[in-house]
Amino acid sequence: MITFKEAYQKVLAHPLDLGTEIVSLMDSLNRILAEDIYADRDFPPFDRATKDGIAVQFSDFANNGHSFKIEGLAAAGVVQQVLNDKNNCLEVMTGAVVPEHCDTVVMYEHITIDEGKVTINEKVTKGQNIHYQGSDEKADALLLSKGKKITPAEIGVMATVGKATVKVMGNPKVCTIATGNELVAVNETPKPHQIRKSNMLTIKAALLNSKIEASSLHLLDDKKEIERELERALIENDVLLLSGGVSKGKFDFIPEVMEFLGVHKVFHRVLQRPGKPFWFGIHPKLNTVIFSFPGNPVSTFANYHLYFLPWLQTSWGLPLDNSYIKLSAAIKITQPLTRFIQVSTEVKDGIFWATPVVENGSGDLTSLAKADGFINLEPRTEEYEVGEVVPFVKTRW
Amino acid sequence: MITFKEAYQKVLAHPLDLGTEIVSLMDSLNRILAEDIYADRDFPPFDRATKDGIAVQFSDFANNGHSFKIEGLAAAGVVQQVLNDKNNCLEVMTGAVVPEHCDTVVMYEHITIDEGKVTINEKVTKGQNIHYQGSDEKADALLLSKGKKITPAEIGVMATVGKATVKVMGNPKVCTIATGNELVAVNETPKPHQIRKSNMLTIKAALLNSKIEASSLHLLDDKKEIERELERALIENDVLLLSGGVSKGKFDFIPEVMEFLGVHKVFHRVLQRPGKPFWFGIHPKLNTVIFSFPGNPVSTFANYHLYFLPWLQTSWGLPLDNSYIKLSAAIKITQPLTRFIQVSTEVKDGIFWATPVVENGSGDLTSLAKADGFINLEPRTEEYEVGEVVPFVKTRW
Repeated sequence: MITFKEAYQKVLAHPLDLGTEIVSLMDSLNRILAEDIYADRDFPPFDRATKDGIAVQFSDFANNGHSFKIEGLAAAGVVQQVLNDKNNCLEVMTGAVVPEHCDTVVMYEHITIDEGKVTINEKVTKGQNIHYQGSDEKADALLLSKGKKITPAEIGVMATVGKATVKVMGNPKVCTIATGNELVAVNETPKPHQIRKSNMLTIKAALLNSKIEASSLHLLDDKKEIERELERALIENDVLLLSGGVSKGKFDFIPEVMEFLGVHKVFHRVLQRPGKPFWFGIHPKLNTVIFSFPGNPVSTFANYHLYFLPWLQTSWGLPLDNSYIKLSAAIKITQPLTRFIQVSTEVKDGIFWATPVVENGSGDLTSLAKADGFINLEPRTEEYEVGEVVPFVKTRW
Repeated sequence: MITFKEAYQKVLAHPLDLGTEIVSLMDSLNRILAEDIYADRDFPPFDRATKDGIAVQFSDFANNGHSFKIEGLAAAGVVQQVLNDKNNCLEVMTGAVVPEHCDTVVMYEHITIDEGKVTINEKVTKGQNIHYQGSDEKADALLLSKGKKITPAEIGVMATVGKATVKVMGNPKVCTIATGNELVAVNETPKPHQIRKSNMLTIKAALLNSKIEASSLHLLDDKKEIERELERALIENDVLLLSGGVSKGKFDFIPEVMEFLGVHKVFHRVLQRPGKPFWFGIHPKLNTVIFSFPGNPVSTFANYHLYFLPWLQTSWGLPLDNSYIKLSAAIKITQPLTRFIQVSTEVKDGIFWATPVVENGSGDLTSLAKADGFINLEPRTEEYEVGEVVPFVKTRW
């Protein structure tokens, strides 16, 4: 059996080239940017008024009780206006181009208008209330870099520079595969010895949070059927995520069938809890990667977050998340197994705390709903102490 | 002008009853649960073998070198098997019902099978490797409470108890409204005095992260058109989110038209930066709530997160997020305005740090892409110190 660290490194050593994809701007939300985004012009693209009021050519008289005649109006969305007489002013609206021969904007709140004559009531500073052309970004400046997650803020930036379509990292074609005769569909009433399929729905939902729409299969414990279905799945997908069927049971045909179908087993069984019987393989010819998780809900969920998501980030060329959290309770790890312990989290006074969730082994589905993630603890002789900082993998957004 | 705290309380004092909606299990992902979820039977529903191996009736002889004849096999997904002779055993698979008259499971790794006779090679504990019926949850136990956000873990729990459809909190019908003649579509090339519409795409994307698909409108600076379009929008929607058109400009017809259409102005202008000209109103007859944000990207984005999202949570009957973060730099707030300052965040040694983003005023769109959220600072004479804990609103997931 190999250690968690070895298994993790072996998984990350088998990334796939997932290519890129062009999607519409709104569809790019929560995807990973696969191109650099540049300013198509200066931002702002012109000297822009930031207040409603008047535009003047600043001179000392702007502070000297001089009154200005209003020559006209510079609205937003119209071409640049011109101030003809520097002793006059133009009314100017927020978002408008500052008129030619003007260099200062005074807001309505600071002026009085009386019979077309403007008096300024507050001290004016030359150049005020103007957002200068190119002061945020110059044309051709790099605004967003390849590899960034696209959130609403990036949608706004890309809209501004005219990216109606965006190149994003490609998604793997994923099939989630449940195995076992004991499983029935969610809308069925299980017989006493049956349970409903839930594990792979959890994983499908988790994949949706990475914007991956997975297909699904349910394999019964029938070797011939497993062979036929797995062969097709290996051809049609980039990634297979299986749950169950990798233990020592009589009907755990998956490893055997995989090898028969040309899959190369990279490892089987890891010194970890939960999820010890995790099986990982690749099909060198078809370029398919197979994560076969143990069937217990907590095992599947832990292995998905601890192996599959880092694998996905590596395939996208992204750095790995390294998150740490403080323990609110002492923990002793005596057995020589890496432990993934479900925790609820809390930020209190700016400190990020983890509290272990009371659970009842890896078959305990409801514990998942109490947890915000897993802490990842290596075995050691000394106890993990209250306040100690340990690695954390988030599972709830 | 009112303070941020007053404005915030006034917004929260006008929630809408958004009702509930029944959606399919997978569509409930990232929605808010609007029903309590109970166990439909015990979990596990039967005494379940957690290892592949043999099931025996424990007696001292299980540790005494006694060898067991294999009577048969208990597979997962079949009815409970019966052990006929307590001196024998049944092979049992993970997930199977523990056979009648058996109380202990010994895994294959700890036994030797020779000509149909099993010898146990390790010490056995009575009751081992069994996940007992009801040990996670008893039938009718409350598993998930109304008001919980549905993440993949909750999808798994609900699948287990047969929730093929789920009652979730209703979404408001939202229309996002951009105003101003200077705006052109993302796929158009703006003239020198024009800019692309980006603000409301940012907001539409943010709404999508709350699973709300908003419609959109663009109002030109034409009072008659604004009247016609706003009247329809007030009737057809629960919430209008506007950007621009609420300053003191000549073409800022929104407040005037709103009042003409029967909207009651709750407040206009708040002692805050960015976003001072924020306008908030309700239509008492149509039951429409109107958030009219200033047109600058940072103002709109800040006000969306600081007012609209708490309003949405309140309308859903949820407690408000109260997040705090530590300052990595000192900040002085001298003017009598509540400041929303964009920060990037980092968890370092379990401590959640905020570092102000260098920005160039509220028109600076690209700064949004550098920030993870806003800190929310009230003015005060003493400087905010390094390490001080301050309120934080997250904008990036």
